[in-house]
Order: sequence, then structure tokens, then C-alpha cells
Amino acid sequence: MNVYEGVMQTLIDELGRLPGVGPKSAQRIAFYLLKVDALDAKRLARAIEDAKDRVTWCRRCFNISEGELCAFCLDQRRDDHVVCVVEEPRDIVAVERTGEYRGRYHVLGGTLSALDGVGPEELNIAGLVRRVAQGGIREVIVATNATVDGQTTAHYITDLLHGANVQVTRLAHGVPVGGELDYLDEGTLAAAIRQRTPF
Amino acid sequence: MNVYEGVMQTLIDELGRLPGVGPKSAQRIAFYLLKVDALDAKRLARAIEDAKDRVTWCRRCFNISEGELCAFCLDQRRDDHVVCVVEEPRDIVAVERTGEYRGRYHVLGGTLSALDGVGPEELNIAGLVRRVAQGGIREVIVATNATVDGQTTAHYITDLLHGANVQVTRLAHGVPVGGELDYLDEGTLAAAIRQRTPF
Repeated sequence: MNVYEGVMQTLIDELGRLPGVGPKSAQRIAFYLLKVDALDAKRLARAIEDAKDRVTWCRRCFNISEGELCAFCLDQRRDDHVVCVVEEPRDIVAVERTGEYRGRYHVLGGTLSALDGVGPEELNIAGLVRRVAQGGIREVIVATNATVDGQTTAHYITDLLHGANVQVTRLAHGVPVGGELDYLDEGTLAAAIRQRTPF
Repeated sequence: MNVYEGVMQTLIDELGRLPGVGPKSAQRIAFYLLKVDALDAKRLARAIEDAKDRVTWCRRCFNISEGELCAFCLDQRRDDHVVCVVEEPRDIVAVERTGEYRGRYHVLGGTLSALDGVGPEELNIAGLVRRVAQGGIREVIVATNATVDGQTTAHYITDLLHGANVQVTRLAHGVPVGGELDYLDEGTLAAAIRQRTPF
């Protein structure tokens, strides 16, 4: 599809590299950008540059941050005794949306994966162990995804923190709120039965 | 979902404005851009700026162009006697991919639409009439989409060029190559029967 001229083709190529954007979408977005006000298009360009220039990783929890420490680490009102360990910064957003959690976070930056060759050194695990060793943390909630890699990583972390004076917990498995048992997979339903709670 | 800090949220908002990019995709793309090499991300930013700065509309056919005239209008080897009228620049790409056409183009920039309040003045129709009036064009192929608005626009242009010394043609309707009759809508099949050609 190389019938466009120079800069237009460059723009379509660059857009096509983004995750979830195929050649057709790239073309559609490129024409959209050509049609909108120059200020609107350049605001996007500037947002990309600003993000690259100014967003970095929190020194303590490895969340995204514009300074040394992220908003969650700086927030004086949050509970220092609990740390929720997640795979990616976007998982913090998911937990925050529940309104159920007021502790601190720790972002691993992925999961262990034999297939992709991701070992403990590639993740922010040493930083977590250091935070726990410094004391003051009473509970570590391991909130990795319920995938094979996520669970493997959770077990690895649990083993690693064994012996440290800290309680390691994980999220409950169970029936999704509003979900119908009939449509639920056996694994989830079995977990929900095992972890049943008194009324 | 306003839990991200300043520039990150700005980037997600700006990405979310793009066609076909919802809040989830915007977040995914933003994190992708944060993770890739700074040079890669900034190449996208620069591509957007360059496109806005340098891409304009061809003075003659209203295709996208980096100069006064687009590549198709400048190409000496193309046939000046035929003009293919399309709705959008991307339709030129579709026609070019066939390898079946070597004439010139004219881009309307949309279709007439009573609903969206698009009249003939909003489209590049006057320019087409002027090109035909200047002489030298023997055939105008009206290749608008086979939608209601596209067909309305085609009829309008045909009427407008009535009396000018030019043959106005349109694309054939019919069975898609590789298509099965069983799955074809009646309208297309009816058109294919009416416009049947000798073996």
C-alpha cells in the first residue's frame, strides 16, 4: 500500500506500529489527523513528546511518575502498613477504581515467563524485598493476574517473602458480582466453593 | 479513569480522540509509547507534525499532496483524457491497487448529504466542472461509493456535466470476484443480471 507520498506514508507507517492499530486503522487515523485543526493534531504530537520527556518510574514502587516518587507514594493519607503488588501500572488504576484499598503499591513491571525469558532480575522484585526488609509493612497483597504467569510470579514472591515478618495474602477467587453460575468455568466455581464465607 | 498523573493522562486523552481508539486502547497505546525507545516514540510525534506542516491539498484534483500538484497530476505518463471522480484520497489508493486505471483523478472530499448539511459548495465539484470546461477530457468515471449518499452525489455530478462534451460513466455493479451467489444480496445480484456481458 505504498501509494502515498513521503510524509503521509511515514505517518501511516508510524501509526501502524502502535498496538492494536492495523494498516487500515493507521490510514483512517492519518486522514483524521490531516482533517482536524492543526492545533488538535499538534497537541497529540506534543503529548507524546511530553510523556517521553517527563514520565519516568517511581523510585520506590515503580509506578509511572513525573517525579522521583509517584502520587501514591507521596500521598500522606495512605496506609504505610499494606503494599499491593501488581504487574503493571494500569493494574493500580483497576484497584483504585474499587475504592476498596488505601495502602501503598508495588509495580513488578511484568511477570516471570520462561517462554519470554523473563527472570526475577527483569522484574522489580529486589525493590519489593528491600521495602519489606526496611520494616513497617505488615501485609503484602499479591495482586498479579490470575493467569499461569501471574500465578507463578505470585508463588515466587510468596516464597521469597517467607521468613520476613510480613503476612502475604492474595485476591480471592470466586463468582463475579452479577455473574451466573451456569456460565462460570469449573475452576472459578470450585475456588468459590472452597473459599466460601459465612453469611 | 482520571487516576493518572498530568502528562500521562493528557496523552491518554489525546489518543482517545482518534477514530477507532477507545479509552482502553488509548491507555494501552500510551503505555506502549512509554516503554518503547524514546526515538521511536518521538518519530511518531514528528511524523504527525510533519504531516500537518507539509501535507496539503492538490490545487487541481484535491488529492493530498506535498506540493501545489499531487503525484498523479504531475505524472506525465498518465492519460489526460480520463478523470476518475472519487469521494476521498483513500479511494485513489483502492483504484490504484487494481492496476486497471492510468488516467487522472478528482477528489470530491465527501458526498452530498442532506442529513449532515453537506451541499455542492462544501465539495470540490466546481473544480471538476472547471476542469471539464477547459477541454481535453473525454470521459469522467464517477467512482463514488455505492451508498445512498454516494449514488446521490453521482447523479448530481452526472446531471451537472450533462451538455458538456464529455462521456460520464460509472463503475459496474455485480458479483464480487470469488463471491458466491447464495450469499449475495438481491440488489447486487439483480444489477449483475441487468448488466450481464457477453462471454
